Amino acid sequence: MSDFVMLAHGSGGTLGHELVQRVFLSHFDDPALGALEDATGLDLGDRRGPVVFTTDSYVVQPLFFPGGNIGKLAICGTVNDLSARGARPLYLSVGFILEEGLPLEELEQVVGAMAETARRAGVRIVTGDTKVVERGSADKLFINTAGIGVVRSGVSISARNARPGDAVLINGAVGDHGLAIMTQREGLRFQSPLQSDCAPLNGLVAKLLDDGIQVHVLRDPTRGGLATTLNELAESSCVSIEIDETAVPVHEAVRAASELLGLDPLYVANEGKMIVIVPGEAADAALQSLRAHAEGAEAAIIGRVGDGPAGRVTLRTVLGTHRLLDMLAGEQLPRIC
Amino acid sequence: MSDFVMLAHGSGGTLGHELVQRVFLSHFDDPALGALEDATGLDLGDRRGPVVFTTDSYVVQPLFFPGGNIGKLAICGTVNDLSARGARPLYLSVGFILEEGLPLEELEQVVGAMAETARRAGVRIVTGDTKVVERGSADKLFINTAGIGVVRSGVSISARNARPGDAVLINGAVGDHGLAIMTQREGLRFQSPLQSDCAPLNGLVAKLLDDGIQVHVLRDPTRGGLATTLNELAESSCVSIEIDETAVPVHEAVRAASELLGLDPLYVANEGKMIVIVPGEAADAALQSLRAHAEGAEAAIIGRVGDGPAGRVTLRTVLGTHRLLDMLAGEQLPRIC
Repeated sequence: MSDFVMLAHGSGGTLGHELVQRVFLSHFDDPALGALEDATGLDLGDRRGPVVFTTDSYVVQPLFFPGGNIGKLAICGTVNDLSARGARPLYLSVGFILEEGLPLEELEQVVGAMAETARRAGVRIVTGDTKVVERGSADKLFINTAGIGVVRSGVSISARNARPGDAVLINGAVGDHGLAIMTQREGLRFQSPLQSDCAPLNGLVAKLLDDGIQVHVLRDPTRGGLATTLNELAESSCVSIEIDETAVPVHEAVRAASELLGLDPLYVANEGKMIVIVPGEAADAALQSLRAHAEGAEAAIIGRVGDGPAGRVTLRTVLGTHRLLDMLAGEQLPRIC
Repeated sequence: MSDFVMLAHGSGGTLGHELVQRVFLSHFDDPALGALEDATGLDLGDRRGPVVFTTDSYVVQPLFFPGGNIGKLAICGTVNDLSARGARPLYLSVGFILEEGLPLEELEQVVGAMAETARRAGVRIVTGDTKVVERGSADKLFINTAGIGVVRSGVSISARNARPGDAVLINGAVGDHGLAIMTQREGLRFQSPLQSDCAPLNGLVAKLLDDGIQVHVLRDPTRGGLATTLNELAESSCVSIEIDETAVPVHEAVRAASELLGLDPLYVANEGKMIVIVPGEAADAALQSLRAHAEGAEAAIIGRVGDGPAGRVTLRTVLGTHRLLDMLAGEQLPRIC
């Protein structure tokens, strides 16, 4: 078998079967996948609360970056979207679009990272598909994952649930993922190496709920960063949100790289962060709960929900002035996820 | 707003939101999508039999072809994979990867076809995602769909269930999709224009089950065609299969185009065909049931399952001789779906 992806790997014939056996089934070892059926049966068993469903495609460039690769990202992103509904992620599908000529070794590294991240998150990869396109018709490797989760009973988390008086928290520093990708892409080197925060957050969310925190809203601030996601939430909930600039955690290396590149960390993508909105009186308990989890060690209360104009997000700056925090306009960092 | 896809449409910011509103939500009108949540709640309601899950990516080139386009294909393919498990398809996710510069008019046509096909199939598009890559990093438009269906109680359909003595049927003529794509791509014109058979087959499968036919195996012969899919089934069920060449329906235009292009219709992809395997004594009833449905008017009994070497598929030719029908080796038609 060749060491590179060939068009015939996408044929549905013998070479395609070899690729599935050699690369995919050797890492994705779920018995459901091994059955090679067109569609996979799911056991939602006794956990049948409301079922939630999500999908994302991943086109990040470069494929490998400090702190992860496109495969790890493709698992984390979808696990986090399910987690943002308060769901326990159970099952994932994976769809690969491969460019002819991709080294199989790179594909294996990506697939290995997917398998490892799925194990870590406790989610099963149960169905998949591979397509191959001619050289020049795609950039190496794109991945789609779709995910299914079950919401625990009594939990109702939605982008519409923020209420005036609620507190806004985040589980750690913003901008790490986007800046790690950006500096890698530009070939820049910094004293403190930047690392993507790419991580599955279902454990963090489960802990919040286990600790009895009454969570109103969860959302992971990916493309467009914290500022854009807060705008979406303020719109969906018909509330205003005020953020305290000094309270938003930003790593020193991210701050330095942002200045150099002329970027605002509040608009830079994250892949291991969750915005958490809870009733004001639950803010301290939520902060403690987050900080007690590995993915929340740097958690902070960063602002509050108000009853100002629906959809307005403002930033109280270091200087004590207020400025409007708009949604991202234009494109800052293409192919960040 | 520009008439072409721009990188900023993938930013997660204002332009991305405009694209979602203008192109996607104007066609995909499911209230679940309009809620703009990260993951969508599903109501599996009283229909809760076993749940099945599947995914496919679509990279067909050209995007538009006689009988359909990539959007129609992306709905049919996933609906048919769910149908092949005897499931009622309920929910789809859609993920778009767009190349910078794609005319929005083409995107709208594709999205419109998806919405129409989903309505026709009675399946809901409930969650989605869009990514944009720079010009030259993808070929116009790729789509991933994932699907969830519920199997009706008492039904157990699997690639492993073929038994010696079973009859093998197909719901119509083979090779239409692949030849329609191929001749379109080569700029060939034939007297009888070739049309893709691209169609959702959940209604056909529901009718078979409603008619009380005891179905052992269903599978749609897409990439690799009828011959490759029969090989997969013979392997999964540990049986041999013998096909009667004269019994396999092939449209005259497909036969002519195949000869011209040096292709074998048995290895050419279909997108509206289902292999149906039933107990020998149920063959006639199954044939009648299929023929009574619009998508089965040309159905035929094409062969039988034997107890020969596991995985062996043979063809009884027009001349009465037998030849081995192997799995497709190499690539016949890249980017056929």
